[in-house]
Amino acid sequence: MSLKRTLFEPEHELFRESVRAFVAKEVLPRREQHRADRLIDRETWKKAGELGFLGLGVPAQYGGSDIDDFRFNAVLNEELSRIGVAYGSSFGIQVDIIAPYLLRLTTEEQKERWLPGFCSGDIVTAIGMTEPEAGSDLGALKTTAVRNGDGWIVNGSKTFITNGGNADLIVTAARTGGGPKGRGITLFGIEAGMEGFSRGRVLEKVGQHEADTAELFFEDVHVPDELVIGELDGGFKHMMEHLAQERMGSAITNVAHARAALDITLQYAKDRMAFRRPIGSFQHNRFLLADLVTRLDVTQAYVDQCTLAHSKGELSPVDAAKAKWWSSDVQGQVVDACVSCTAATATWRSTRSRTRGWTRG
Amino acid sequence: MSLKRTLFEPEHELFRESVRAFVAKEVLPRREQHRADRLIDRETWKKAGELGFLGLGVPAQYGGSDIDDFRFNAVLNEELSRIGVAYGSSFGIQVDIIAPYLLRLTTEEQKERWLPGFCSGDIVTAIGMTEPEAGSDLGALKTTAVRNGDGWIVNGSKTFITNGGNADLIVTAARTGGGPKGRGITLFGIEAGMEGFSRGRVLEKVGQHEADTAELFFEDVHVPDELVIGELDGGFKHMMEHLAQERMGSAITNVAHARAALDITLQYAKDRMAFRRPIGSFQHNRFLLADLVTRLDVTQAYVDQCTLAHSKGELSPVDAAKAKWWSSDVQGQVVDACVSCTAATATWRSTRSRTRGWTRG
Amino acid sequence: MSLKRTLFEPEHELFRESVRAFVAKEVLPRREQHRADRLIDRETWKKAGELGFLGLGVPAQYGGSDIDDFRFNAVLNEELSRIGVAYGSSFGIQVDIIAPYLLRLTTEEQKERWLPGFCSGDIVTAIGMTEPEAGSDLGALKTTAVRNGDGWIVNGSKTFITNGGNADLIVTAARTGGGPKGRGITLFGIEAGMEGFSRGRVLEKVGQHEADTAELFFEDVHVPDELVIGELDGGFKHMMEHLAQERMGSAITNVAHARAALDITLQYAKDRMAFRRPIGSFQHNRFLLADLVTRLDVTQAYVDQCTLAHSKGELSPVDAAKAKWWSSDVQGQVVDACVSCTAATATWRSTRSRTRGWTRG
Amino acid sequence: MSLKRTLFEPEHELFRESVRAFVAKEVLPRREQHRADRLIDRETWKKAGELGFLGLGVPAQYGGSDIDDFRFNAVLNEELSRIGVAYGSSFGIQVDIIAPYLLRLTTEEQKERWLPGFCSGDIVTAIGMTEPEAGSDLGALKTTAVRNGDGWIVNGSKTFITNGGNADLIVTAARTGGGPKGRGITLFGIEAGMEGFSRGRVLEKVGQHEADTAELFFEDVHVPDELVIGELDGGFKHMMEHLAQERMGSAITNVAHARAALDITLQYAKDRMAFRRPIGSFQHNRFLLADLVTRLDVTQAYVDQCTLAHSKGELSPVDAAKAKWWSSDVQGQVVDACVSCTAATATWRSTRSRTRGWTRG
Repeated sequence: MSLKRTLFEPEHELFRESVRAFVAKEVLPRREQHRADRLIDRETWKKAGELGFLGLGVPAQYGGSDIDDFRFNAVLNEELSRIGVAYGSSFGIQVDIIAPYLLRLTTEEQKERWLPGFCSGDIVTAIGMTEPEAGSDLGALKTTAVRNGDGWIVNGSKTFITNGGNADLIVTAARTGGGPKGRGITLFGIEAGMEGFSRGRVLEKVGQHEADTAELFFEDVHVPDELVIGELDGGFKHMMEHLAQERMGSAITNVAHARAALDITLQYAKDRMAFRRPIGSFQHNRFLLADLVTRLDVTQAYVDQCTLAHSKGELSPVDAAKAKWWSSDVQGQVVDACVSCTAATATWRSTRSRTRGWTRG
Repeated sequence: MSLKRTLFEPEHELFRESVRAFVAKEVLPRREQHRADRLIDRETWKKAGELGFLGLGVPAQYGGSDIDDFRFNAVLNEELSRIGVAYGSSFGIQVDIIAPYLLRLTTEEQKERWLPGFCSGDIVTAIGMTEPEAGSDLGALKTTAVRNGDGWIVNGSKTFITNGGNADLIVTAARTGGGPKGRGITLFGIEAGMEGFSRGRVLEKVGQHEADTAELFFEDVHVPDELVIGELDGGFKHMMEHLAQERMGSAITNVAHARAALDITLQYAKDRMAFRRPIGSFQHNRFLLADLVTRLDVTQAYVDQCTLAHSKGELSPVDAAKAKWWSSDVQGQVVDACVSCTAATATWRSTRSRTRGWTRG
Repeated sequence: MSLKRTLFEPEHELFRESVRAFVAKEVLPRREQHRADRLIDRETWKKAGELGFLGLGVPAQYGGSDIDDFRFNAVLNEELSRIGVAYGSSFGIQVDIIAPYLLRLTTEEQKERWLPGFCSGDIVTAIGMTEPEAGSDLGALKTTAVRNGDGWIVNGSKTFITNGGNADLIVTAARTGGGPKGRGITLFGIEAGMEGFSRGRVLEKVGQHEADTAELFFEDVHVPDELVIGELDGGFKHMMEHLAQERMGSAITNVAHARAALDITLQYAKDRMAFRRPIGSFQHNRFLLADLVTRLDVTQAYVDQCTLAHSKGELSPVDAAKAKWWSSDVQGQVVDACVSCTAATATWRSTRSRTRGWTRG
Repeated sequence: MSLKRTLFEPEHELFRESVRAFVAKEVLPRREQHRADRLIDRETWKKAGELGFLGLGVPAQYGGSDIDDFRFNAVLNEELSRIGVAYGSSFGIQVDIIAPYLLRLTTEEQKERWLPGFCSGDIVTAIGMTEPEAGSDLGALKTTAVRNGDGWIVNGSKTFITNGGNADLIVTAARTGGGPKGRGITLFGIEAGMEGFSRGRVLEKVGQHEADTAELFFEDVHVPDELVIGELDGGFKHMMEHLAQERMGSAITNVAHARAALDITLQYAKDRMAFRRPIGSFQHNRFLLADLVTRLDVTQAYVDQCTLAHSKGELSPVDAAKAKWWSSDVQGQVVDACVSCTAATATWRSTRSRTRGWTRG
């Protein structure tokens, strides 16, 4: 019903079919369990790995799919996000966010240590940036890494870490104190099982119930030099370099999730009767739904344009920020309006069971 | 910091003190339990009854407080809603919505049967109007009451019934089929324990977690004539007569709840630091918070004006509808903006733990 | 159709009748001429003076009406603003803004010099604050007054001066340079005809076409000491003292003007046919109009509450600012929506001829 | 600063240069005159004709430029709309709206009669659809054409006809009463100078001051058969066929106009000082301007996508309607916010003189 998207080639659509099959067969049947457990089980990760979804941009020699085209990431994200925002987030951390760190900043030894498991789903990853006091203000980062022998002693804590309850490898930012003004930050690959590393409770959130978002604690964790990722005191720069891709991941999730909510609502508006008519036949609802469809089409056009630019390496972080901000806002508008549209005209029940898990992400 | 309200007299403010004491001593300490149980426990109801809060407008002879001034209802609602929307809703069903039915439509026998328990908290009440198919469209009401001997046989089901999991008396609308066009509706007092009356699960909702919102089922429930409330086939008219008060209850809840959320946010904006400054000191947040304060002050002025008019019996259902709609909308705007204000600038954690239970009601 | 306002007493409603008669008889017949001329003619001012509207708060001994109750100002403003924002602005400058300066800050000689003409309409006034570079940022005020003999030499210019093309007396802010930090501002009563005082063109504006908004130039204007208003270097303080009243003038104008636009639109929605039905019968328009009516009722309630508080001397400048900001915003929303409602469904013509002069003020 | 547009090829950008030169040399110097006269003078039309802008899609044999690629229309529209909405509208009527009628529905004789003058600027055209009572509801069209000898007698009136005061040829819809239900509409080429055809006043509008929007009257105008355009009773169908292009014309105008307003505002925000800082440096304004830039970038992406689809003949009227509606709304938001941004922080003057002519189109 909407303008044909021009972003994708036939190979992307073929890939979409395989993601859809995975979602239908492996993810949807487990979704209620994932939500109840606040955890995407390891079986699901491994299935995704088997199908080559986790190592999209990773060279074949490390077990990857060797596909360096961000549009495949976009397809994966879209299909996962349609059934729950946290699938987009949790897999996106791995595929969109961590992959570039492990590919561009690592030594050969690190690649061999981490990438095969990363691709197979044996190594689930997370990024340890946000802190209880600092939020995502890196200038206020409090976790420290102090030089000790042939390595570092890391102390501090992180919070709101997506995949945190489950991750085998956390790319962790800590203040090493070198560099100009002595405020340098370095990235460390901290692995599950290291002494002094522990996890707090999985956090209760308003949405994203599939995700094991958690607190992490580091108490005198010894990290050897070979697990330093990228340049010493270069962490801030490294994190900035990947901003455009991280933002596009969110933007794609936002649109796909809102589209799913809208599709459900359009169907509901046809089925649900009130005052002896389908609720979608009332002028107010027709105008509202036309507004929402337009709003999403317009947003999709921009996000697609940015995705294409990014797949060519031409997207600035500022334009990516526009895509992320705008699509977040539109997602909120669409989902809110969908809830109102259904709830206001009819009752809450169906809405509620249908919208369980619609969250702002 | 805002314009002094002119609605209340000293006696209302005295009453507010006693409600506040009740909230602090009896409700707040149990709030987490209520939310976990999806139930306001009977002890809490009884304490409210002891303090005279449940029988505000009920004559002393039936155990009531004999206070016929809706501003007292408003005070009770405001103080309860500050700590959770469902307190406002659940107690409001009893005090604002059911009370007029039991006072104005009942026989002397009915008054004696129900009012003492209603005032003491031994009889918690609910209104059985909304149905799974019909929603709140009374024209599509499907529950029926068929004449049988000296009474009626009621069949049907209700849903989204606040207090439904717990109520001892449900004022239930059923189609009796008399009146013009044979579409008459009659109200029945259906009591817990009647044969054929059962309850479904307590519903999972996005918010209002303190409330035992439930489904109710009536299977050949025999209701004797003496439990018919008001006129035969007069149910529609009776339900319409009380609309203004029901709407004002919602309006008052909306404003009080939004004000509580805003108060928390204003404090948080002073305490939470980002980029080495309190987040409330950023111009964007200052403008946003000024907007929200104004928005609520303006809304309060209107709701207060309506409350005063209603306490004099001069409020039309249309003006009450304006107050309910507008305040609902403003509540949503304020709460959303509060979440964004805190979350966007800093992190989610404090927001989340502080706002648990902020819902749209 | 809306909630009864509680602000006014019978004497205010009587006064409203007389203002309405004046508007109908003296103002409306000249409105097109005023708009074409960008000038409210002197005859109109004098009629207003004869009826006692200009000297509302002025003691009888100076020719005033001796009524010190801001609600009368509110009534005058409401009735004038209904037929054009600039009437509210132009008369408001005189009655709401300048009156307090001339009453509270002046010497007996000044009162005798200015107040009789002020009350009769022979002396139309303006306030000379805004400047081309500074806008209304008093800290950047560039007009200077330098001490010279028994008076001051004023140099500088002002712009966007309502009543500026016509005024006989301009209360003018100039930097006198005393006080702490040497940045003191003093108010001067500059009169038409003084040497060195000239006026620029009457400005073309988007709206407020009845007003002779103009630029003013001061080139070595000699102002004797007896025309200094208030304290030397006390101008900033004096201007701040009157903020609440100035803001309430705007707020009252905003609501009255929006209400007039909405009344026209409600009538138009009944009369104008499209697709063989009155355009007001379409659900979208019904919902829109209900929204606008509510929005204005809510805003009126707040502005009325502020007006009452101000009439008792209890309104803070902050609450007045809320009233001004909020009502300005609502005015814009209502007028825009009114134009869209009529224009979108039907044609522009009637809208246009009816709404000529609807501006944001 | 924004994402590179991908719609245009180098030939379009070359064409843009020539339009820009025309605008700078021929249109801008006359703009004030056009606005004062409410008329784009014939000289300007002829210059446009000379440069080949008017006959973009017209075959060379009729004097046209023989370029059948809507993206050239888009470029012309964008450059004209940057300096005033009515240039986009007035030329758009000719180039985007009337051209398809004269190319696709006309006989060879009609082509020879009208197209050479159409291309040269000697024949300015208009579309006569909207009526005083009917608006643009064709079902209520009242102008009639009654069979008479070898032609038709046309009676009725039109209003809000862009180019109406000046047009040499008006493609006029009149009810001929054949077809199913006898409600058929036929298009007639009515030429200036025909007996019984007259024009009313040029209408005063809120904006689009360059346009000679006018009323047209037909009193027993005799139109010979050879001036019937398209099928008898086929007018409704013909008008529907061209909807997508008409809508895209508006959409392109909307975005270009808003972009121009935003460009001026961004510059103004750098230049204008308040409180000793450029007004654009305040956080509130920075956030606002970032919002507006994003809003326009997003909208541009969608309109570009639609323009491309339309240039391939693949755009549905529904998607074109989305583009028109959304871009109109965004235009209003952007222009309003631009006025507020400049006016609120500083003064009105510069805003006003800079924004003269910013209208909603």
